Amino acid sequence: MFDAIIIGAGPAGLTAAIYLLRENKKIKIFEKETVGGKITSSSRVDNYPGIVSISGAALAEQMVEQLEALGGVIEIEEVKEITKNPLKVITDEGEYLTKTIIIATGTKYNTLNLDNEKDFIGNGISFCTTCDGAFYKDKTVAVVGGSFKALIDAIYLSDIAQKVYLIVRKNYLKGEKVVIEELQEKKNVEILYETEVVEYLGSDSITGIVIKEKDKKRTLELDGIFLAIGQIPETKEFTNIDLDENNYIKATENCKTNVPGIFVAGDVRSKNIRQLTTSVSDGTIAAMNVIQFLKEEI
Amino acid sequence: MFDAIIIGAGPAGLTAAIYLLRENKKIKIFEKETVGGKITSSSRVDNYPGIVSISGAALAEQMVEQLEALGGVIEIEEVKEITKNPLKVITDEGEYLTKTIIIATGTKYNTLNLDNEKDFIGNGISFCTTCDGAFYKDKTVAVVGGSFKALIDAIYLSDIAQKVYLIVRKNYLKGEKVVIEELQEKKNVEILYETEVVEYLGSDSITGIVIKEKDKKRTLELDGIFLAIGQIPETKEFTNIDLDENNYIKATENCKTNVPGIFVAGDVRSKNIRQLTTSVSDGTIAAMNVIQFLKEEI
Repeated sequence: MFDAIIIGAGPAGLTAAIYLLRENKKIKIFEKETVGGKITSSSRVDNYPGIVSISGAALAEQMVEQLEALGGVIEIEEVKEITKNPLKVITDEGEYLTKTIIIATGTKYNTLNLDNEKDFIGNGISFCTTCDGAFYKDKTVAVVGGSFKALIDAIYLSDIAQKVYLIVRKNYLKGEKVVIEELQEKKNVEILYETEVVEYLGSDSITGIVIKEKDKKRTLELDGIFLAIGQIPETKEFTNIDLDENNYIKATENCKTNVPGIFVAGDVRSKNIRQLTTSVSDGTIAAMNVIQFLKEEI
Repeated sequence: MFDAIIIGAGPAGLTAAIYLLRENKKIKIFEKETVGGKITSSSRVDNYPGIVSISGAALAEQMVEQLEALGGVIEIEEVKEITKNPLKVITDEGEYLTKTIIIATGTKYNTLNLDNEKDFIGNGISFCTTCDGAFYKDKTVAVVGGSFKALIDAIYLSDIAQKVYLIVRKNYLKGEKVVIEELQEKKNVEILYETEVVEYLGSDSITGIVIKEKDKKRTLELDGIFLAIGQIPETKEFTNIDLDENNYIKATENCKTNVPGIFVAGDVRSKNIRQLTTSVSDGTIAAMNVIQFLKEEI
């Protein structure tokens, strides 16, 4: 019987684990894929207070080091299901009874599924303008997508980059009128409708893309590309927990879900702002509420 | 006219400033006393994810460095008042019109309210082991308090001083298990439970204290005393904003106060958990909501 099982070893899950280990709690941390989570795909993190500049991968590594210094171990197992009564986590390798669960599975970004995409992520392909936008001062970038996030990303980048292409698959933009108008007033933003990216160019990092406009292909030279084609929360295993309309897990400000003993932290939580800082905060809050919950259970 | 004025240069205020400067916003940051805030008085920070172990002062210094790299400047001015209509910040040196305000004033340390206390602060009474601990090499000191900060302070001082008394009003310690165990292993730390300080002794500086254990008074000779007995929010200037029953500023999960354009971040916000991680999260959320507010105002 564990005090807590943490599902997901991104910043939220790692923080929760660090806090729980400092209280000598008996925990397990499961990660199915990438230790460190989505942050590992950020080439440079400049907005994590206290660390002037670091790669996402190095930052994640330092969090793991901190965890291991406390005796923490990340198990690479994929959670298949959790049961409520009794509280149990079922992975591809076993079943684990536990007093509490912290779901910190995060989200994953949608990608274009093109050749070499994996290699370019963090080397010219980015998903987060607030994280990586500042690296493209006076450079040329593209944003892929036609929804609110894409518009906001393009507007944001237009104040930094010299030139911004907005590559939209459909023939219209989706978003608030004021935002669309704001975007259209930006002199350095060029919107390409009914256009798709069909190829990434470059060796170590992106130097351009091939686009297809209706039936014509052409090359755009650029320094970076931001994919804003959505992210989806990793919640399909949690059918017995209340989700919002986009499948994020609903919770109180104290990170409590509708199921007693099950908490949620990080990007997978239904909320407005998803940043590294808010993830580590969620991890802290979930862990401290787990500790409180365990006290009350005695 | 500023886009935002941030009151307080602790982790919450510094984070908000970093986020706003990364969006090219025109901001001012006021600090009346300690750049870096209360964290600077923490001898050891081990639970900030991504930094295995660091002194609070060094961590704050790194945040300031990060701010300055973005062109940020901290002004040492004391805010006396803010007005709502128009939104204006009045300091001891001037008046500043602004579109938004982020209050990140934090909390200040409680004292024992004994005779001569004010005179002894800085002359034997201290709140900051990192700042003043080194003065007590091979000497005798006391830490007053029974909570996490008191424990960490006592551990820190036990490696410097010859003898450390930990004076605890209650009959138990409050803190993480690993920390309590670490403390109990220190041979030169003597924990006095159910004990209060009733008098400071000394002329120019502290030479001892009178303590009351249950009903018995006795004198402890010592060279310095560290108070770790909690804190109160710095909100007396903000009479026109809704406070909770303990004078912390009420806000939504998005860090909005009851006054449009005024946001709150960090320890001064009414909430359950106050950690470094939650402060930097608040700073992020307040800044991003300021950015949203500025967009809507256009």
